This record gives sequence, structure tokens and C-alpha cells, in this order.
Amino acid sequence: MEQNLSDTIALLSRTPAALDALLRDLPEPWTLRNEGEGTWTAFDVVGHLIHGERTDWMPRAKMILQFGESKAFEPFDRWAQQRESQGKSLAQLLEEFARLRSENLAELRALNLRPADLARRGRHPALGVVTLSQLLAAWVVHDLTHLHQLSRLMAHQYRDAVGPWGKYLGVLHCTAHSAP
Amino acid sequence: MEQNLSDTIALLSRTPAALDALLRDLPEPWTLRNEGEGTWTAFDVVGHLIHGERTDWMPRAKMILQFGESKAFEPFDRWAQQRESQGKSLAQLLEEFARLRSENLAELRALNLRPADLARRGRHPALGVVTLSQLLAAWVVHDLTHLHQLSRLMAHQYRDAVGPWGKYLGVLHCTAHSAP
Repeated sequence: MEQNLSDTIALLSRTPAALDALLRDLPEPWTLRNEGEGTWTAFDVVGHLIHGERTDWMPRAKMILQFGESKAFEPFDRWAQQRESQGKSLAQLLEEFARLRSENLAELRALNLRPADLARRGRHPALGVVTLSQLLAAWVVHDLTHLHQLSRLMAHQYRDAVGPWGKYLGVLHCTAHSAP
Repeated sequence: MEQNLSDTIALLSRTPAALDALLRDLPEPWTLRNEGEGTWTAFDVVGHLIHGERTDWMPRAKMILQFGESKAFEPFDRWAQQRESQGKSLAQLLEEFARLRSENLAELRALNLRPADLARRGRHPALGVVTLSQLLAAWVVHDLTHLHQLSRLMAHQYRDAVGPWGKYLGVLHCTAHSAP
């Protein structure tokens, strides 16, 4: 399936409410535990999504439109949320994510992108030449990667508690951690 | 982490609203496509969760309390939703799931389970002896397994569209499909 702008926006616009419904006021064992050293909690994941809204997706989309392949994107800081989320509650992060996503989608819609724009090319600092359409598809799949990670890290907390059922529960067998 | 009844109920009670926020009125390319032959769509997943509410979790919990290890649970039909979801819309399924989950959690709360109850044992037709506590933990991780599956099957639709980003997006590398 090709990237389709209205399908992309439809999914991107739902992520904040889905995370809010899942995580808000959830007991801390679910939101403040990770999968072991060097891994993230649900709190970290929401902070990471916020950082992406601020520095990654729309800033990169605008760089493609403005500079094309002539200027590489800024590398993405996968640990920025450790600094930026300090002192905030999960509820605050969920609200900040929803607000930033909504602003970014308003800006995306206002660009009125046509097929020729979606085919425009930019330069990723590690991946090389990418198109605006690929960037928008990656924004969606990045949301889904972190929803996938969230379900896995929360399930991890009950890894032992499920006893023999562990064999049947696919999420406990996932090894597809995100690359940097 | 041990299974904790209030943590369990907190998570179980959020799943229907999270799925509703993610899936309701989402364009059909996200909800009616699967990952290939013999796999499920988002529509199938919600139907499967409904079947679990009707026939699996609370009925099995009550069997443990009533019969202990003397009577094995009914095997779970993983394809029942193909029959039971026919002619329904995704919005109808989301509402049905929310209603059944809410009724089941009201029933679970009304049991006023004490630690001694949670240690009671029943018999799974394939896994053998299991405890009520393990059953409740498995109910949670079953929700998370299907949230994990949902994020993966939706991401699959943009597998090609993301171009070189595929390398970085963990959900596209997940092979942890659920066992029957």
C-alpha cells in the first residue's frame, strides 16, 4: 500500500487519544517500569514521542520542501526525553504530546501537499536520500513502533505472573526492539 | 512483579477505550487489511477480544472457583470471530467489547477475591494446572498481545511506503505472532 496523506493523518491524529486512554492514571507499576537496563518505561516512550514532534517529523518535512537533498536532517536524539521529561507527570506529557501533534497536523494540512511534493527528496544523515512521502509513512510507523513497544514493556511486568500461559502470549516472545 | 488485582483491573478496564480511540472511524485500509493469508485484520482482533469476554476469561475464573482442578476449561476457539462478527461494523464491535468488558470487570470485582482465592487451581485443557492469579495475569497480557499485534498489522500496511526507514522501525521486524 502506498502512503496516502489522508490515511496518514487519520492514524497520526488518533495516537495521542489512544495513549491517553491506555495510560492516564494507570498504576505506576505499568508506567514507570522498563524491560531492564537501557530500556524505556511508558513514561519514557511518551517523552520520546514529544521530542519527535518538536524536532523530527515536521521540521524534517519542512527541510525537504526548503532544501531538498542539499542539507541533511539533524540527527534525532533518542535519549532527549530523559532531560526534557524531568519533573513532569505522565498526565502532563500526554497533554503535551496531544497538543504538539495537533499543531503539527494542522501545519501539515496547511501545506496542501500535492503528489509532486510528496515525491520530493531530502537527505537523512544516515539513510541517505529519502522522499517526503517516506518521511510521512515513517512518522506513522514510528507511532506504531512505540505502541508495539508499550504493549511489550507493559506485558513484560507480568512475564512471570502468567505462569504456563506465557507460551501462548505472542507479546512475551517479541524481540523486535527498535534500533536507534 | 506479582499479579496484583487492582493493577490487573486498572489495565483491563482501559483496553476498550484505547482501542476505540485508535480504531473508530479509521479509514478501512488500516482496519480491514491483514498481514497475509491466515492472519487477522484489526476488525478480526476486536472480534476475537469479544469472544474472549464471552467464553474465556470470566467463565474460566468461575470454573476455577467452582470446580478447581477437577474439570478442564473449554478450549478457546481462535476463529470464532469469523462467524460472530459477520454483518457487524467495527464501531458495533468496539461498543460490544466495551460493554462486555465492563460487565466482566463488575463481576470480577463482585467476587471480592482474597489472596487464598487467587492461589486456587484449575485445569487448562492443554497447559495443565494453572492458578486463578495466572489466569488474571494472562487476561491482561492477552489484551497486550493483541495491542502488539494491532500495531504490527497496521504498520505492515506501510512496510514498503517507509522506504529506507524500515531498518529503524522495530515493529516491522517483529516475528512474535501469537500461538493458537
